[in-house]
Amino acid sequence: MADVKSILHEVKAGRLSIEQAEELLMGASRLDYATLDLDRAGRTGFPEVVYGAGKSVDQLIGIIDRLQAHQELVLVTRVSEKQAKQVQEQRPNIQYIAEAGLLIFSKKPLMPKREGYIAVVAAGTSDWQVAQEAAWTVRCFGSETRVIADVGVAGIHRLFHRLEEIRGAAVIICIAGMEGALTSVVAGLVDKPVIAVPTSVGYGANFGGVAALLAMLNSCANGVAVVNIDNGFGAGYMAGMIHRQMVR
Amino acid sequence: MADVKSILHEVKAGRLSIEQAEELLMGASRLDYATLDLDRAGRTGFPEVVYGAGKSVDQLIGIIDRLQAHQELVLVTRVSEKQAKQVQEQRPNIQYIAEAGLLIFSKKPLMPKREGYIAVVAAGTSDWQVAQEAAWTVRCFGSETRVIADVGVAGIHRLFHRLEEIRGAAVIICIAGMEGALTSVVAGLVDKPVIAVPTSVGYGANFGGVAALLAMLNSCANGVAVVNIDNGFGAGYMAGMIHRQMVR
Amino acid sequence: MADVKSILHEVKAGRLSIEQAEELLMGASRLDYATLDLDRAGRTGFPEVVYGAGKSVDQLIGIIDRLQAHQELVLVTRVSEKQAKQVQEQRPNIQYIAEAGLLIFSKKPLMPKREGYIAVVAAGTSDWQVAQEAAWTVRCFGSETRVIADVGVAGIHRLFHRLEEIRGAAVIICIAGMEGALTSVVAGLVDKPVIAVPTSVGYGANFGGVAALLAMLNSCANGVAVVNIDNGFGAGYMAGMIHRQMVR
Amino acid sequence: MADVKSILHEVKAGRLSIEQAEELLMGASRLDYATLDLDRAGRTGFPEVVYGAGKSVDQLIGIIDRLQAHQELVLVTRVSEKQAKQVQEQRPNIQYIAEAGLLIFSKKPLMPKREGYIAVVAAGTSDWQVAQEAAWTVRCFGSETRVIADVGVAGIHRLFHRLEEIRGAAVIICIAGMEGALTSVVAGLVDKPVIAVPTSVGYGANFGGVAALLAMLNSCANGVAVVNIDNGFGAGYMAGMIHRQMVR
Amino acid sequence: MADVKSILHEVKAGRLSIEQAEELLMGASRLDYATLDLDRAGRTGFPEVVYGAGKSVDQLIGIIDRLQAHQELVLVTRVSEKQAKQVQEQRPNIQYIAEAGLLIFSKKPLMPKREGYIAVVAAGTSDWQVAQEAAWTVRCFGSETRVIADVGVAGIHRLFHRLEEIRGAAVIICIAGMEGALTSVVAGLVDKPVIAVPTSVGYGANFGGVAALLAMLNSCANGVAVVNIDNGFGAGYMAGMIHRQMVR
Amino acid sequence: MADVKSILHEVKAGRLSIEQAEELLMGASRLDYATLDLDRAGRTGFPEVVYGAGKSVDQLIGIIDRLQAHQELVLVTRVSEKQAKQVQEQRPNIQYIAEAGLLIFSKKPLMPKREGYIAVVAAGTSDWQVAQEAAWTVRCFGSETRVIADVGVAGIHRLFHRLEEIRGAAVIICIAGMEGALTSVVAGLVDKPVIAVPTSVGYGANFGGVAALLAMLNSCANGVAVVNIDNGFGAGYMAGMIHRQMVR
Amino acid sequence: MADVKSILHEVKAGRLSIEQAEELLMGASRLDYATLDLDRAGRTGFPEVVYGAGKSVDQLIGIIDRLQAHQELVLVTRVSEKQAKQVQEQRPNIQYIAEAGLLIFSKKPLMPKREGYIAVVAAGTSDWQVAQEAAWTVRCFGSETRVIADVGVAGIHRLFHRLEEIRGAAVIICIAGMEGALTSVVAGLVDKPVIAVPTSVGYGANFGGVAALLAMLNSCANGVAVVNIDNGFGAGYMAGMIHRQMVR
Amino acid sequence: MADVKSILHEVKAGRLSIEQAEELLMGASRLDYATLDLDRAGRTGFPEVVYGAGKSVDQLIGIIDRLQAHQELVLVTRVSEKQAKQVQEQRPNIQYIAEAGLLIFSKKPLMPKREGYIAVVAAGTSDWQVAQEAAWTVRCFGSETRVIADVGVAGIHRLFHRLEEIRGAAVIICIAGMEGALTSVVAGLVDKPVIAVPTSVGYGANFGGVAALLAMLNSCANGVAVVNIDNGFGAGYMAGMIHRQMVR
Repeated sequence: MADVKSILHEVKAGRLSIEQAEELLMGASRLDYATLDLDRAGRTGFPEVVYGAGKSVDQLIGIIDRLQAHQELVLVTRVSEKQAKQVQEQRPNIQYIAEAGLLIFSKKPLMPKREGYIAVVAAGTSDWQVAQEAAWTVRCFGSETRVIADVGVAGIHRLFHRLEEIRGAAVIICIAGMEGALTSVVAGLVDKPVIAVPTSVGYGANFGGVAALLAMLNSCANGVAVVNIDNGFGAGYMAGMIHRQMVR
Repeated sequence: MADVKSILHEVKAGRLSIEQAEELLMGASRLDYATLDLDRAGRTGFPEVVYGAGKSVDQLIGIIDRLQAHQELVLVTRVSEKQAKQVQEQRPNIQYIAEAGLLIFSKKPLMPKREGYIAVVAAGTSDWQVAQEAAWTVRCFGSETRVIADVGVAGIHRLFHRLEEIRGAAVIICIAGMEGALTSVVAGLVDKPVIAVPTSVGYGANFGGVAALLAMLNSCANGVAVVNIDNGFGAGYMAGMIHRQMVR
Repeated sequence: MADVKSILHEVKAGRLSIEQAEELLMGASRLDYATLDLDRAGRTGFPEVVYGAGKSVDQLIGIIDRLQAHQELVLVTRVSEKQAKQVQEQRPNIQYIAEAGLLIFSKKPLMPKREGYIAVVAAGTSDWQVAQEAAWTVRCFGSETRVIADVGVAGIHRLFHRLEEIRGAAVIICIAGMEGALTSVVAGLVDKPVIAVPTSVGYGANFGGVAALLAMLNSCANGVAVVNIDNGFGAGYMAGMIHRQMVR
Repeated sequence: MADVKSILHEVKAGRLSIEQAEELLMGASRLDYATLDLDRAGRTGFPEVVYGAGKSVDQLIGIIDRLQAHQELVLVTRVSEKQAKQVQEQRPNIQYIAEAGLLIFSKKPLMPKREGYIAVVAAGTSDWQVAQEAAWTVRCFGSETRVIADVGVAGIHRLFHRLEEIRGAAVIICIAGMEGALTSVVAGLVDKPVIAVPTSVGYGANFGGVAALLAMLNSCANGVAVVNIDNGFGAGYMAGMIHRQMVR
Repeated sequence: MADVKSILHEVKAGRLSIEQAEELLMGASRLDYATLDLDRAGRTGFPEVVYGAGKSVDQLIGIIDRLQAHQELVLVTRVSEKQAKQVQEQRPNIQYIAEAGLLIFSKKPLMPKREGYIAVVAAGTSDWQVAQEAAWTVRCFGSETRVIADVGVAGIHRLFHRLEEIRGAAVIICIAGMEGALTSVVAGLVDKPVIAVPTSVGYGANFGGVAALLAMLNSCANGVAVVNIDNGFGAGYMAGMIHRQMVR
Repeated sequence: MADVKSILHEVKAGRLSIEQAEELLMGASRLDYATLDLDRAGRTGFPEVVYGAGKSVDQLIGIIDRLQAHQELVLVTRVSEKQAKQVQEQRPNIQYIAEAGLLIFSKKPLMPKREGYIAVVAAGTSDWQVAQEAAWTVRCFGSETRVIADVGVAGIHRLFHRLEEIRGAAVIICIAGMEGALTSVVAGLVDKPVIAVPTSVGYGANFGGVAALLAMLNSCANGVAVVNIDNGFGAGYMAGMIHRQMVR
Repeated sequence: MADVKSILHEVKAGRLSIEQAEELLMGASRLDYATLDLDRAGRTGFPEVVYGAGKSVDQLIGIIDRLQAHQELVLVTRVSEKQAKQVQEQRPNIQYIAEAGLLIFSKKPLMPKREGYIAVVAAGTSDWQVAQEAAWTVRCFGSETRVIADVGVAGIHRLFHRLEEIRGAAVIICIAGMEGALTSVVAGLVDKPVIAVPTSVGYGANFGGVAALLAMLNSCANGVAVVNIDNGFGAGYMAGMIHRQMVR
Repeated sequence: MADVKSILHEVKAGRLSIEQAEELLMGASRLDYATLDLDRAGRTGFPEVVYGAGKSVDQLIGIIDRLQAHQELVLVTRVSEKQAKQVQEQRPNIQYIAEAGLLIFSKKPLMPKREGYIAVVAAGTSDWQVAQEAAWTVRCFGSETRVIADVGVAGIHRLFHRLEEIRGAAVIICIAGMEGALTSVVAGLVDKPVIAVPTSVGYGANFGGVAALLAMLNSCANGVAVVNIDNGFGAGYMAGMIHRQMVR
């Protein structure tokens, strides 16, 4: 879809049949239960990622097989330990990152491709899984990541002790549940973009992460943008994309 | 109502007629449009306070006159400048605190009656009116107050610069709109009770103060309790009552 | 963080290396999965409390061991019977208060350290666990507590029968689900601060405690501040802190 | 619609043409802007009531004229002073009850038709208009009413002082804003049905009456049913209907 | 509490000690886990009802035993089949109405004590349990009831076929989930009070009964008052109380 | 966009330059403040409609002028009387339908182009403007419409009296505020699709039309689909499109 | 109910007894637990459909048996695999469509009765079950359907590749979870009515489908109407009804 | 605050007095009504920005004067035309950007300082003001911006026509009201980070921008992060910060 003009040129020049042109515009490959978007890396710079929750093991394997044939990297999110175990029995070359709930297959080792790092700052130990999902997504983008956990504002000196490390990052992912105050404090102390992830950690009037979500959207500090509740993957993706732009 | 037993004793002893006993239990005085609670100071240690919003000038004056006859102090909250001007024309001995929206009549000057002070910590300049409502309510309780304004977490050093003054207070009132993060930061740094007031300052997904309210209810720091949105009076009342208990 | 100035003096005087100064400002101790806030008692007058829900037994024991080395008191909230049993098998010196869901380790017996008591007033039998969480937290603060249960307003004479005991308290914790009316009635009859705890008891348009929460935030009686739904610990903490201020 | 069977008999007997039968089933009369329900009194025991808010003066007069031709009583609710003045200029025989926002036309004087009375119990002076709307609706039903105002639970003795009068009523309407606690207290003390009306009195987390509405729906006392926020008319209607059933 | 005056007379006359007077005002009996309100029938005309959900079998039996000693009737609501079976093993004289989730003990058979009946009109078969809870509560009040089920507005002729039976009732309970339209249709066709019960039947934007609740609160037909979602007991109680007033 | 293939053929054949092809794919015309979608009629069968609320008179005239040059019909919705008057002063050939808030310019008279009609059924007189917006939109589609107003379920015979007319329609638009029950009743009686429009008519727990919206989404009768609150235009558009499909 | 007039004629002519007339108006058949609406096909063109969720196997079989005696088609929705298996053991002539959760009994094979088809367009693989429920409902209406799955806007070329097939449909059902954007994109590209189905696919601030529901109600493209969350049946019904009108 | 360590070194070396150190840590300057954060540019790379809404002209001028003395750039957001006019009368060197509601003072002309540009993509003409607020904020960061307006998905070819320009940007700001679908479509077509801004454009179930906010948080396309409703400034700030990181 991206280079409509060049495809038009090719068609005009007769180097491309109309059917081929259509196929190129499509770039997708159909399974019974899915229409894969094999052109996504070309368009967005990152291949299609699979949302694992609710998919059967057969569906997961079918999708993974097809993607492996076309992509350097296959990433499946929200995979339970049970799903992972069954997938790995049949496809042992897939790695499962249990603390992040991710299945990862990569043709090359995941190595940092550029200078600098992305800081993943989390308020509490309960935010650990979301932080890991973010960190591993960043690694898939080819960036280094440093996880700075349990530095919530109830003991704000813990944050200040790690401040230089945070300030040194190229992008900061800030993860917090409860009242989500960490985001505003961090954003007020750094000169880097902050991607905020509200988590559903808490109870009562927390409403499954809504309290933290609203706090982050209303941050009095500037330079903050927010992703969905518990969406560590989304934050890692956004941060990875920004970092890739910075240091191509 | 409180000392039912002693009233029963008085009735049994014949020192109190049944009608007198009923009257005592009541202690209220009826107007056409209101049933005043003249016994409230006896019961709760603070006289009945009038909510001014939506009352006509005639109603305000009628209630004020009656309360002045029985109480040392008359406090009317949420009074507009227009209401105040009209009341003062007819009752010039009433003071109007415009920045707090309060009408105050006090037989004695409002002087601190006890050691220590209550800190009113506000995040932004827009929280000023709520802060003043809280501060003047505290003064009506006979406590000293210090207002520490515009120390929101976007520039957290402003807070640290005033921290000793905040830590020195007997009780802390913490006022913030937007994401309300100030409360958690303050509560994590002090060993005094924090009364949190969410304000309706903000826009969009702030929802008229709900974002700050939820943040404060979900504070990761302990020692925080919350009053209604924009309820500076309620916070001042609570803080004044606590301080009064500490230093009788 | 609190005494920045004195630390600066020490640094200037050469009695403290810069590294030591930093360490002091930090005061925290890192585990793999947590950054403990060992300085919290110094800062807030009460040591760090652990939120037990969702933590593994290994994590709980790791944290407890570290805290026991530095603190007089270790308190873990929201602990299930199953978690508790497994922890106690390995650490038999920890006490489990089943009806409050608390694990408590204290080097000295929990004895009242000051005059007076805190009343924990609960509307119904279903509020029992929240009331116990509040009561035991108060005890950890070194205050005496009296639980006055099942005095909801449907039979308001039950409340009046216990009124003297309630009025005699230094601070009142008021716990109610459903419509939460008990708080307003109690606050109108006493001259002490009331910490209100909405509970999730009820069904339908109760919305998991929201009905009671809103009622308490909108109380027509003054002298009320509110903590999160079902947050007995938070109320006990707030009340204990106020009482400690009153009678040091 | 009610006596379909008897109309069928009349049709069969030839005493009623099919067109007449249809017309009878209809019983309504069309205006350009309204389809009046002239049969409503026959069906429900009370004639159609007009909702005045948002109607033009011409529409109001058109509807009133038509209803006056068919009904003993014409009641228009939510009428502003401005609307009322303009209607009365052209139709001087209509009475305007300003404090209830009602226009009333009645061929006979509104006199109690049955023994007993309906108590309208209101928590605060700000609930006055809703209380008056309820009281005048009750009067239209031919029942006596007694308004007991400003007996909110912040000074609960005020309520006890009027308790005998409340308990003597055949039906009780209970009106409250803020946290709406009055309803539960009253319902726990009486053996009569309580119709609860939440009002939008309050601010912040009151959410325009939602706090009181939820409180009343979740009342821990039995014998309570609720109408819409600020719906004094609806409560008066329900109470009048119940009373009419009791004493025909 | 009701006859404070007569108790005062008794005290003055020396016929009642102060302790006895207090005890009378109380009328409650304490268990470890509950404060029973044994005077409730005297005050409200119906004895205390026990909310069964979440209570242990031991608690249920303890409360039932105590109530049986003082009351003619013991009613426990929201009792699961499992709870019921265990209670009945130990207290075989208690009846369990499975389709209503009620435990009932009555010294005398439940027989209608007055003329007329209460109609329980339900929209769908899924509303059956709520309808039965309402019907059996009505029976406990000594009134006859008729259940008219599955007459929702999708096939409105089903309703018209039963209309005479509905119109003949003294009070109408109207139960509906989904959009709750049945209430408005019924109320527009009858001259009796309608107690509306929204149920949580439905899915998606039904939000657990909120759709029906809002519909009933906003009914365009008059003579409707609403109880909590799924609260068949509350509706039966209200209807029974109204009927009792009508035909004493 | 639709016929990408034919455009590709034209490009290949050299009959269309790449620039022309791009332009054709665009089909839009830029103003400073708007990108008009002049191809919309080709794509969707109805030209672009302008949302008038909040636009300046200059913007409206600029857009209208441009659209008049390319379209047979120009429709502007949500136009206030003030806006309309100012537009008409400068462009007198535009018609303003005040009761619908619409500006209409049509090169040919609006005449029914096909058999049958669309019924616009409205519950109350307050729904009139929404009904008119729907009706005039239908007319712009070239279909006849019949407005059947004020047939709400509080007097359901009014509906039955018009039932044949409703059943005779090709499509039914059903408009209701308050509890929105009319939709379910109508849909249960007809064999035609029902487009439901919730209106913001009502107060209190109506929440600006949310009560009716939820009712319609949860209709127990089948054959109902819903548009946004007060969106008469959207309903008329949907109904017109369906009717056009039926009778081309 | 529809032809009241013709029934009246029959009654008048003596060809129909009053009892028969009533019975005809009713057309329903009572079971213990349900009042079947056997006349529904006559009234709405489609027989009564049974909502299977929460019904016992005995109830399902009882209802199916009765409906089979009177209807050509019996459709039961929201049937679990477990319910289906038990029903089929006793009634083997019922077909179970597992991927749609439907039980279907049809006297004649389900064959398209009219020209054209209905497109069921779904955004993701997780919307599959809702899409199948819609598709099979369409088939029960006698229309052909084509399911176009996994064409969400994240890879919008997938949609364009299928656009001609979508544009060729008589009616379009558009199913999407998450942000529901597919509906607006589709509706902007076609000249056919779009029935939108929000699904509960997603997490966090998706709120069980509310995000997609609001998106669809607020679609910037015209020609969209919405059914309840996950209501594939409702969408299929609406589309089937529209198609039936188009090509009778 | 940032370089605590270097300040400690300076203090130790005696080159900085303790008071100076404190002052440096503070860096703020107090007004009566505000505590300015003059160090913010040092900390975050951008000076403090003033929120103009609700501030008096005197306050605005006071703050501007002070900031002008310390900052190269002064930016005031949400300034009404009336406020602007009064400020400019007294401070004519301040520029007012009416369509963005911004007051800007810059010592140097606002010139792009780095390669590349930021695309501001807006769905409708009604989103214009938010788009301008974003664009001018970007310019204050020293980046070039291109506004691409009115390319909503109802006519998606308008978007494709501008796609190359959008894809060429370094960062994309995507602004949409109503259902907010534009964001997902854009993000699926580009390889750059997308900052999404929901606007309050719409009505009914739009809920002041909540529909678009939820859509953006739930975007099925990756690489999206969201700011508060109508927060064009916040999006411009975030985008400017990212761009500055990319090309220093």
